[in-house]
Amino acid sequence: MTIKRIDHIAIVVENLDRALGVYRDALGMAVTDVREMPEQDVKMAFLPSGDSEIELLEPLHPDSGIGKYLAKRGEGLHHICLEVDDIEATLADLKAKGSQLIDETPKQGAYGKIAFIHPKGAHGVLVELVQRDA
Amino acid sequence: MTIKRIDHIAIVVENLDRALGVYRDALGMAVTDVREMPEQDVKMAFLPSGDSEIELLEPLHPDSGIGKYLAKRGEGLHHICLEVDDIEATLADLKAKGSQLIDETPKQGAYGKIAFIHPKGAHGVLVELVQRDA
Repeated sequence: MTIKRIDHIAIVVENLDRALGVYRDALGMAVTDVREMPEQDVKMAFLPSGDSEIELLEPLHPDSGIGKYLAKRGEGLHHICLEVDDIEATLADLKAKGSQLIDETPKQGAYGKIAFIHPKGAHGVLVELVQRDA
Repeated sequence: MTIKRIDHIAIVVENLDRALGVYRDALGMAVTDVREMPEQDVKMAFLPSGDSEIELLEPLHPDSGIGKYLAKRGEGLHHICLEVDDIEATLADLKAKGSQLIDETPKQGAYGKIAFIHPKGAHGVLVELVQRDA
């Protein structure tokens, strides 16, 4: 069981175009894709850097999970995602060690199997795990 | 002016040993160093992964900046750091584009020149810039 890398950092923003004004235009980060992902209720922009990536998330609806998070907490860091080589083994190990999980079994994400650790199980950080499809 | 990589993600925690119980022991991340940095009022643990790193920060004093942050906001994501190749050029560019900076000129950090962008200038995210010493 190995953490391979920090897959991405997700930042929730009110408006993707305004956020790109900072992260793309002022900071000069490259944007490889901007797309709506209705199944996750977000519009996303992908800004890779080194072997990791910043993802900007704009909620599509104020009543979605991410929309409510934005209303309550404001813009800012939302979660980090760690790439693992064996997500089932990682989840079993976390469970055995008493970590609080949101997903006890992985679900299929856009590019691999994913699961979330509850912030209460990771010192206040919402941690996503991903095992990317081969 | 280029962002080279996500240098690190900083997480503020109440107790470093307990946090290592999750990030090192349960998640299996490697820890390369744990040390007190009194000039920054923190005890830090460094957990590299891929070409980036997670840094866990425990305040040394409740009345320090980071101690007050912890008391007010609780444990969780504190800031992200982006490595740049020319920090003066990046700051000048940010300033010209109206971004709100904490440091208009870089200061010397432990391993290079650093400066912080105010969360109000980066959609709620405290962003550190670092130009590492050659």
